[in-house]
Amino acid sequence: MSLRPTLDFLLYQWLGAESLNQRARFADHSRETFDAVLDTCERIAREKYAPFNRTVDTQEPHFDGEKVILPQATHDAQKAYAASGMLSAAQDYEVGGMQLPYTVEAAANAFFAMASVSMGSGLLTVGNANLLMVHGTEAQKDVFAKNEFSGRFSGTMCLSEPQAGSSLSDVVTRAVPDGADFEADPLGPRYRLKGNKMWISAGEHELTDNIIHLVLAKIPGPDGKLIPGTRGISLFIVPKKMVDTEGRLTGVRNDVALAGLNHKLGWRGTTNTLLNFGEGKYPVNGEAGAVGYLVGKPHEGLRCMFHMMNEARIGVGTAATMLGMAGYYASLDYAKNRPQGRPITGAGKDASAPQSRIIEHADVKRMLLAQKSYCEGALALELYCARLVDEHHTGEAAAADEARLLLEVLTPIAKSWPSEWCLEANSLAIQVHGGYGYTRDFPVEQYWRDNRLNMIHEGTHGIQAMDLLGRKVLMEGGRGLELLAARINATIDRASQVPELAAHANALGKALQHVGSATKAAWATGQPGEALANAVPYMQAFGHTVLAWIWLDVALAALQADATKSIAATAGKLGAARYFYHYELPKIDAWLKVVETRDLTCADLAEESF
Amino acid sequence: MSLRPTLDFLLYQWLGAESLNQRARFADHSRETFDAVLDTCERIAREKYAPFNRTVDTQEPHFDGEKVILPQATHDAQKAYAASGMLSAAQDYEVGGMQLPYTVEAAANAFFAMASVSMGSGLLTVGNANLLMVHGTEAQKDVFAKNEFSGRFSGTMCLSEPQAGSSLSDVVTRAVPDGADFEADPLGPRYRLKGNKMWISAGEHELTDNIIHLVLAKIPGPDGKLIPGTRGISLFIVPKKMVDTEGRLTGVRNDVALAGLNHKLGWRGTTNTLLNFGEGKYPVNGEAGAVGYLVGKPHEGLRCMFHMMNEARIGVGTAATMLGMAGYYASLDYAKNRPQGRPITGAGKDASAPQSRIIEHADVKRMLLAQKSYCEGALALELYCARLVDEHHTGEAAAADEARLLLEVLTPIAKSWPSEWCLEANSLAIQVHGGYGYTRDFPVEQYWRDNRLNMIHEGTHGIQAMDLLGRKVLMEGGRGLELLAARINATIDRASQVPELAAHANALGKALQHVGSATKAAWATGQPGEALANAVPYMQAFGHTVLAWIWLDVALAALQADATKSIAATAGKLGAARYFYHYELPKIDAWLKVVETRDLTCADLAEESF
Repeated sequence: MSLRPTLDFLLYQWLGAESLNQRARFADHSRETFDAVLDTCERIAREKYAPFNRTVDTQEPHFDGEKVILPQATHDAQKAYAASGMLSAAQDYEVGGMQLPYTVEAAANAFFAMASVSMGSGLLTVGNANLLMVHGTEAQKDVFAKNEFSGRFSGTMCLSEPQAGSSLSDVVTRAVPDGADFEADPLGPRYRLKGNKMWISAGEHELTDNIIHLVLAKIPGPDGKLIPGTRGISLFIVPKKMVDTEGRLTGVRNDVALAGLNHKLGWRGTTNTLLNFGEGKYPVNGEAGAVGYLVGKPHEGLRCMFHMMNEARIGVGTAATMLGMAGYYASLDYAKNRPQGRPITGAGKDASAPQSRIIEHADVKRMLLAQKSYCEGALALELYCARLVDEHHTGEAAAADEARLLLEVLTPIAKSWPSEWCLEANSLAIQVHGGYGYTRDFPVEQYWRDNRLNMIHEGTHGIQAMDLLGRKVLMEGGRGLELLAARINATIDRASQVPELAAHANALGKALQHVGSATKAAWATGQPGEALANAVPYMQAFGHTVLAWIWLDVALAALQADATKSIAATAGKLGAARYFYHYELPKIDAWLKVVETRDLTCADLAEESF
Repeated sequence: MSLRPTLDFLLYQWLGAESLNQRARFADHSRETFDAVLDTCERIAREKYAPFNRTVDTQEPHFDGEKVILPQATHDAQKAYAASGMLSAAQDYEVGGMQLPYTVEAAANAFFAMASVSMGSGLLTVGNANLLMVHGTEAQKDVFAKNEFSGRFSGTMCLSEPQAGSSLSDVVTRAVPDGADFEADPLGPRYRLKGNKMWISAGEHELTDNIIHLVLAKIPGPDGKLIPGTRGISLFIVPKKMVDTEGRLTGVRNDVALAGLNHKLGWRGTTNTLLNFGEGKYPVNGEAGAVGYLVGKPHEGLRCMFHMMNEARIGVGTAATMLGMAGYYASLDYAKNRPQGRPITGAGKDASAPQSRIIEHADVKRMLLAQKSYCEGALALELYCARLVDEHHTGEAAAADEARLLLEVLTPIAKSWPSEWCLEANSLAIQVHGGYGYTRDFPVEQYWRDNRLNMIHEGTHGIQAMDLLGRKVLMEGGRGLELLAARINATIDRASQVPELAAHANALGKALQHVGSATKAAWATGQPGEALANAVPYMQAFGHTVLAWIWLDVALAALQADATKSIAATAGKLGAARYFYHYELPKIDAWLKVVETRDLTCADLAEESF
């Protein structure tokens, strides 16, 4: 199975990505240049990533007392990725980029997520550098961001702390001015940081010359106290090794120490670390405290960080999607080749008939079609969101603003939906394999383990749901939800004219109304405690409705491209859409029931009754 | 958290297990003797199993070229288990048993499944020996079964083959008479077996003096050909080491060789093996071929094997349940102790308030209550089925027959439902832990990995569903389903009188009607291919309806025992029941929709369209 035909269809037939070259920024591009990027990434993923996916699982990162050791394959893969130019693909020509649309960048990165999600393709590094390109000074861009784009340095995001987890308002890492001249440092106002950061991916390794940590910390007030809540948070660049204004290593190690590697269920190609900042293990100029350079203004750290949240969350959603896709392809291949049992005919089974391949069994087909509908649907959603990012960045003012607001509403779904349903797809891929799927001789158990991370990192499922129902559908007077509804209704209108999609269109219309009325009912009392008690079931129903819309829109495009349905893939898309409407969309009523009744069964149960 | 109060409530308050001593077979028993068994098992599980659950995961079985090496802890645990007398607990006094009801045996074994499911408590050995006590000759009972009950030998079940998996009709292991005097062997008609058996749990180890394999094989007809289908299957005792008529090892190894250990995703405390029978590695009397003794009559092997299926499937269901429970308790403990974030009050969050423990967050409570409702509900179902086994074995004729038929219908649910939903509970337990749940420093990721096996072994989900919709609800003119409906309606009638349960009773009545009408609609055309295409969604809906019934019945018992609700656990049971009715039962409509419309979206999609 090749991902490419699916990707090509979504990019060109469905999203019309080719036409992005009508915009000034992308004027030099064409389907040919896009395809060249996809070809390169597909090849590197096939040659440098996929063959080593099990290697990075079994040869987990370990610390030898001085260095963190990763398999040679990971070094080779990251070199090849950097050499491809993908780290700076989206950047301006003048900083060495190729001004590639994000839509195509996201599509190209999908190959790496499918081949070996945890070896990493540089999403963190790119996100880190992108943030600096927006909020950093010229010197910060030159010294840090550009060296990240070249692959010489890599980047991290240091948000969580052991005692605070998702609760960023409780960050206690302190940053105090480093000397009287702290504001005069050419790399930015210089502070000393002390604190511990947990769950830091790629926090320590030898893959690059340096690691650029972006760290959230609080600058104490005049009374020495930290400002409570998230308002007090500022953002700092903390390099692992000190650099001069030309980006050269000075030979001085910064006071950032590895406190421990987390030993994970999966996703073992990357380190995940606990880092101690400023504990004095590596004093700088004889003094404990990690040197950090302020990014942007004090107390605006979270705002800067959130700047990159949309793309990071689309990245996680795409990773979850592609893990699901990898399992789908593996189980489809297995089902086509594994003989076992016999098909049920009108009269039951005939034991003297030759064995069938298991893809001939209806229940195996059900498990395969469910995977297809989850994973291809999720991929379409991620690419749709990526296309909105491009619109936000390069569209005309009104369209750009609309894209921004749509992204606000869709991002929690783009992050959460694949992390739940493409994980379910991985479980089905195991089930298709039977006992073999439970062994480490087949790849599907690893996909399932790897994918379990995605509901946790970059904002847990619960956090995404609170964000959606508590903020996104309310913001700007509910305009985001209205914009989304308008797009969904436009698809419904078109599909209503197509005989084989009219019933789906009707079902989607009802689902949309139900989500809308449930949103109102959830907030009818105006009490956040009542509205948000069932934020996760709300998000599940919202997500299924969005995916139903995506499938209807994709089905329309498939019929438009192949009206006579002469291509097998067209029937596949229509079948996956039909599966989604018959088997999945009806689930939303159960989820919305507790939302619209503001059911407090869970919230009200006393602790001692559990 | 202790399992004991929940178990005690279900056994004594709900199922009235104490009154089993009114039956002749159990006349010497009392609540005291039952409690003594539970105490002993709880203690052994706590001391010999639980502390080593991670050990057996990390120190996976390996073959050193001669022997399979397991951790010392596994040897110690199995010795302690055998010493407790549990292997023969259900047997007659005259063979050294304690004539313990199966209900209590199953409850007592739950402690081991929760403490370390894969170290094993002897379910296979007991099942193997039980089968021989029913179908074996006196010599077979004395030589094999009794040595299994004492813990001197252990047992396996050898059904699957590498090329056939779930499709037993394709078994090709051959059994031919061993010499002209083959019928004269005191241990039973003697055959020589050749073939390969896959997925054999506990197939090779040094935990016991000998391993007694029960092997399905085909005796060729006069033309040398195997009879197609399952009719041709016979059952054989194949000991790893040859024994004399006193059960002593003769010093001769039988021709059974370990061909490979399966390296699994979880459940690593037990070996899972590929065994070669009769390849000539260990010739007996200079001849290749594993010596096997026929059990029962030729060609009746499957019937003998199915004799123990109900208990084996209840065992798997209980294992899945207890893995879920272990995760529930771990995440409940974590949630009560982990401070993070702040509760949402009417006005939103107050960042200056002290951190709450995460059990104070509504979404965490939702995830905990879901686990409680899945796992305690599943435990109740398993114990209910165990009680039916006792009724089947010791009840008066009509009641015994009713219990038999109810077990036929409920067994697919008892096996499949916990394997799906207590796995989901394990995923929620990870989610409650956040990032910590994804590390191997906490136990929940292992529970999740271990539990993934249960949808696969002892009949996959798909097999259970075909069994339910294709056989069990139809057999004896649908009388099993009628019996179940009568019991459910009896619960509904009682609950309708109780104000706080009346709405649940009403909902259950509708669900039962829906399952009934969907069953008819599925078979309306009489075409198995149409009825069974959605057998799994049918089983899911059926299972949720059964669990809703179980919860309603448990809630009635809870109110009966504590009408003033002065005990915190009573509110817990009512809350879990309420959760199930509000959040879970409404899901059945979506599942049944495809069943009653005989939806062929999946079955009809052409292979090339995937």
